[in-house]
Amino acid sequence: MIRVGVVGAAGYIGGELLRLLTVHPGVELAAATSRTLRGRRIDGVHPNLRGRTELDFCSEEQLDYYDALFLATLHRETMRRMPEFLELADTVIDLSGDFRLHDKDVYADYYGVSHTAPDLLETFVPGLPEFHRRRLRTARRISVPGCMATAGILSLVPLAEAGLIRGEVTIDARTGSSGSGAKAGPENLHAERSGALRVFAPTRHRHEAEIAQAAGLSVRMTATGIEAIRGVQLVGRAHLVPGADERRVRAAYRSRYAAEPFVRVVAHRRGMHRFPEAKILAGSNFCDVGFALDRGSSHLTVIAALDNLVKGGAGNAVQCLNVRFDMPERLGLEFTGLHPN
Amino acid sequence: MIRVGVVGAAGYIGGELLRLLTVHPGVELAAATSRTLRGRRIDGVHPNLRGRTELDFCSEEQLDYYDALFLATLHRETMRRMPEFLELADTVIDLSGDFRLHDKDVYADYYGVSHTAPDLLETFVPGLPEFHRRRLRTARRISVPGCMATAGILSLVPLAEAGLIRGEVTIDARTGSSGSGAKAGPENLHAERSGALRVFAPTRHRHEAEIAQAAGLSVRMTATGIEAIRGVQLVGRAHLVPGADERRVRAAYRSRYAAEPFVRVVAHRRGMHRFPEAKILAGSNFCDVGFALDRGSSHLTVIAALDNLVKGGAGNAVQCLNVRFDMPERLGLEFTGLHPN
Amino acid sequence: MIRVGVVGAAGYIGGELLRLLTVHPGVELAAATSRTLRGRRIDGVHPNLRGRTELDFCSEEQLDYYDALFLATLHRETMRRMPEFLELADTVIDLSGDFRLHDKDVYADYYGVSHTAPDLLETFVPGLPEFHRRRLRTARRISVPGCMATAGILSLVPLAEAGLIRGEVTIDARTGSSGSGAKAGPENLHAERSGALRVFAPTRHRHEAEIAQAAGLSVRMTATGIEAIRGVQLVGRAHLVPGADERRVRAAYRSRYAAEPFVRVVAHRRGMHRFPEAKILAGSNFCDVGFALDRGSSHLTVIAALDNLVKGGAGNAVQCLNVRFDMPERLGLEFTGLHPN
Amino acid sequence: MIRVGVVGAAGYIGGELLRLLTVHPGVELAAATSRTLRGRRIDGVHPNLRGRTELDFCSEEQLDYYDALFLATLHRETMRRMPEFLELADTVIDLSGDFRLHDKDVYADYYGVSHTAPDLLETFVPGLPEFHRRRLRTARRISVPGCMATAGILSLVPLAEAGLIRGEVTIDARTGSSGSGAKAGPENLHAERSGALRVFAPTRHRHEAEIAQAAGLSVRMTATGIEAIRGVQLVGRAHLVPGADERRVRAAYRSRYAAEPFVRVVAHRRGMHRFPEAKILAGSNFCDVGFALDRGSSHLTVIAALDNLVKGGAGNAVQCLNVRFDMPERLGLEFTGLHPN
Repeated sequence: MIRVGVVGAAGYIGGELLRLLTVHPGVELAAATSRTLRGRRIDGVHPNLRGRTELDFCSEEQLDYYDALFLATLHRETMRRMPEFLELADTVIDLSGDFRLHDKDVYADYYGVSHTAPDLLETFVPGLPEFHRRRLRTARRISVPGCMATAGILSLVPLAEAGLIRGEVTIDARTGSSGSGAKAGPENLHAERSGALRVFAPTRHRHEAEIAQAAGLSVRMTATGIEAIRGVQLVGRAHLVPGADERRVRAAYRSRYAAEPFVRVVAHRRGMHRFPEAKILAGSNFCDVGFALDRGSSHLTVIAALDNLVKGGAGNAVQCLNVRFDMPERLGLEFTGLHPN
Repeated sequence: MIRVGVVGAAGYIGGELLRLLTVHPGVELAAATSRTLRGRRIDGVHPNLRGRTELDFCSEEQLDYYDALFLATLHRETMRRMPEFLELADTVIDLSGDFRLHDKDVYADYYGVSHTAPDLLETFVPGLPEFHRRRLRTARRISVPGCMATAGILSLVPLAEAGLIRGEVTIDARTGSSGSGAKAGPENLHAERSGALRVFAPTRHRHEAEIAQAAGLSVRMTATGIEAIRGVQLVGRAHLVPGADERRVRAAYRSRYAAEPFVRVVAHRRGMHRFPEAKILAGSNFCDVGFALDRGSSHLTVIAALDNLVKGGAGNAVQCLNVRFDMPERLGLEFTGLHPN
Repeated sequence: MIRVGVVGAAGYIGGELLRLLTVHPGVELAAATSRTLRGRRIDGVHPNLRGRTELDFCSEEQLDYYDALFLATLHRETMRRMPEFLELADTVIDLSGDFRLHDKDVYADYYGVSHTAPDLLETFVPGLPEFHRRRLRTARRISVPGCMATAGILSLVPLAEAGLIRGEVTIDARTGSSGSGAKAGPENLHAERSGALRVFAPTRHRHEAEIAQAAGLSVRMTATGIEAIRGVQLVGRAHLVPGADERRVRAAYRSRYAAEPFVRVVAHRRGMHRFPEAKILAGSNFCDVGFALDRGSSHLTVIAALDNLVKGGAGNAVQCLNVRFDMPERLGLEFTGLHPN
Repeated sequence: MIRVGVVGAAGYIGGELLRLLTVHPGVELAAATSRTLRGRRIDGVHPNLRGRTELDFCSEEQLDYYDALFLATLHRETMRRMPEFLELADTVIDLSGDFRLHDKDVYADYYGVSHTAPDLLETFVPGLPEFHRRRLRTARRISVPGCMATAGILSLVPLAEAGLIRGEVTIDARTGSSGSGAKAGPENLHAERSGALRVFAPTRHRHEAEIAQAAGLSVRMTATGIEAIRGVQLVGRAHLVPGADERRVRAAYRSRYAAEPFVRVVAHRRGMHRFPEAKILAGSNFCDVGFALDRGSSHLTVIAALDNLVKGGAGNAVQCLNVRFDMPERLGLEFTGLHPN
């Protein structure tokens, strides 16, 4: 049994980690911290866990040493505290944004502050098994990508690697409200947020930088809050290189993902469900990836969807844990999603 | 032109008053106060009013004297400040809960505090033209009922007055999130509130006391937050007295509301829209009232719906203004609602 | 391995059976029928099952013999065809409404047609393990209750059995749109149904008769369609007998459900999640049951919530299968629900 | 009084025309046709019109002659029947897609059929007062643009006219379910459509051709169905020509729309409402237009929002009527939209 702890367990990503880890057959969940709720029942905040755990929230001071420690902590604060976190576990799996970008200047540009631990940046392995599985097997420091970044990377990098696209990529990203966390401001008041189509980041969303870094492409992303609690969908646009066509795009995805347990290629000619859609993925660890080509054109549209709290966060982190500790990669992540939903 | 001011204009009821008053042909909107937004543009908070008003928020200290002053202020605070408000206008139209209940003991029971201005309680005329039109024509102090109370009173009082129902009435009330106001707590975070079916007041909701007071009946009400921003729907249950039947129920409603501009009887035998539903009433000042009888039974179900911010608040208040200042009662309240919506 | 088939697998209850059965470790899913989709891929209709099954839909003529056959078939048609279904399996688990009511006259009253197989009515064991576990262990014919009936029975029968309530019970039932099935009419068009608060059965809903039958009480139920795809919530009202109080109500629920894997008592004094709510139950097999008492009153409010397609349908049916074939009762039903959701 | 008729009045665009025309002070609504509902009450289908009209649906055979006839009729069928419609009115205002494209080859390409009345194509004036007001004053044949086309044209043409953008424009268009009409198929079943993020037209949406025609630009549009009943939002991307900057973009919009009653420029530096959003526009005739520039970049993002049934359909058609018959352009179109909503 892998003994694990979760720092920041009262938030939405933290709660999702608890949901997955309490039933994970290879894991003993030993600690779940919250600054404000020490000693309180976990199911008071995460009511879906009623009857699933007797654990109460503890304070960070009560942490001892773990095989793996998950950090569902705030950006900016995480980098400052990383040295102490590294003392608490064999392996640290960070879900904050602080160790996703390798270049401290890019970090400063997108996060608006200087990185306080730039020397650590290169020591983190990106927490995306589809592209870093080998390194993850021995990684002691893992940085899980952002939710929209994961969808963008999984849909664009296979095409970039195969040399099929060129020039600038634009992305329209749509996200549900849980991405803003459990302590959001007036923007997330139900009466304001419900039914919204809110372009909250017309340019320079932080996840844009992650996608650009992974794909080696120039990326322009716009992020819109849409009516959903969970769920991210990306629509990307790129131009194919001469000679590339639908067949080669499909082949690039297929060869890349044929053996992947959590990426599905969804690109049918017809039917209501012919492209990836987030709502049937709620709770599941899948990222669905699809594409469409305008007839006789080099203009390619790619579409990706996932649950921002699962494959875009906690589920992906657990998948990394499975890889790291040599457990079956699907373990604890078998939930298939609901339809209708 | 009637010169009016709105105290508490940055909230949802306040914003709805501004929406109605800026286009009301008989009214000059002269002041809209906000404690925190003095000098700020109104359309920064109420974006639907872009291009409709050049007014900025002012502080309460900047108020002078008005023909009518609308109070969209907090419960408990309103009763303490009422003496000063009464100095500021010929007619005060209060949308808080503080002057709705005539009996200070009932107030204390339902609001959990003693009333600080019990002597004023009887000086307020209930702001419901359908039942108090004559008194409203000369009223200087008007207390607009609660949103669920308005739906309950309009659907039950005609039957009580006609002596058609007896015993205890139970009410299942459902309400959208805007009823909680623009400064709500974690319960109104989108991720928590969206899709909710939250029994937030299984017993003793304050509006229960208003309905009981108006109908002279014993009333048990349960209030549930449902997925909506605007909208209230009540399902009430009562027992008919011997001899009462569907025909007499319909006649009681029809005779009461035949000449009313804003109450419609909606009780058809079939069709998707055969009973009152809130969503087509958004923005309108209608309260739709309907009923159904179990065949061969004395068990009566009544159904009422309205927009909590309009007929359940600001629209009803404007209707009172129209009555008080001898303007056509529909003036400024003609919007008919949307379908589909 | 139990070899099972599903008749009517293209609908929502059918799809949910497939979701549960494809990953159930004790079951081999051998057939899934659809009249119109023979030979078509299952994930074309149920996209959440991509990668989970290679099975295609078959016709009913292709059925052979199964350990258990689930019927997700239409009311009225099921009773006519039941004799042939009984030939196809050791155990038949019927999810239609045709064998839920024991009395053919009550059936005729609520379904509007005469029962065509009245002799079979008494041969079916109610598919509710919480109340019929012993008989289910050897049952060959199982009739799973309606979704709202399950919530009503689980919340009211313990109190009726304990003699704590008396007289008439009224129920306000709220249901999501999936309860209408995958082939619904104009009422279920998104633009009409979204955001609805539609009292579609003010009286005489069929599930009312099931609750009355199980509880031995007079029941009046009103059913409202609310904004949700999945989810049922019931608010019931009853009067306590003299001497009954909150403590005894809680004790009645606790003693009845202490050992039950899928019923949780949720009745806290405070907190956003203090009563049962459907949205965190989506996909799970839980029914949450709670209650509230008006202070110093005999007026009791009970609240129950479940996912209509799971504990209110397919999940409950699989739980019956587990009981019938002596498997662990939770097997294949461990999903805990999502929060936020 | 202008005497008008509506053909196809039982659909959503038809119903919206009725909503606007029944209260329009310069119009007498004389006929509303429906093939299937002849003689039936209008408020049976459009319940928001209860008490607003005594008109029943009539058949098309009952039409006589009108000052203006609105066609809310199907694509393909409208072009075949246009000769007879032209006999029925002084002025025909067509809301179908059949006379929006001037080039019959483009029509064939995007609609998949040959145009049956190509000679009439050039006789229709585009029903967009912001760009064709002068011609509309005397137009006898008016073709109202598609909902997404209107948003695209209003946001892109001022920039194209000013020579500020170059090359290919891409558009991510999002639309609510009412755009699919009142007789939609399984895709619009609530359980499937609710919460959807459905890329239903990854390429070649018909409105793309309208925008390209109006702007003289190469346009690539992707259309996604999002969770809304009403509402369209477009996010467009273009590259600025050298020398163009934020100031010039703003100036281009401002000069174009300063005097327009129904286009607002919404592009603030901060705030929840800093860009156009559809939900506060429901029921209103506004199109809000905004933009953002990546710092130090030529990459421009434009954002536009409107209610697809109003400025994207019926409201725009009424605005054209006002222009055509020399009435104040805002007449009957004053509703300002709701917030929160």
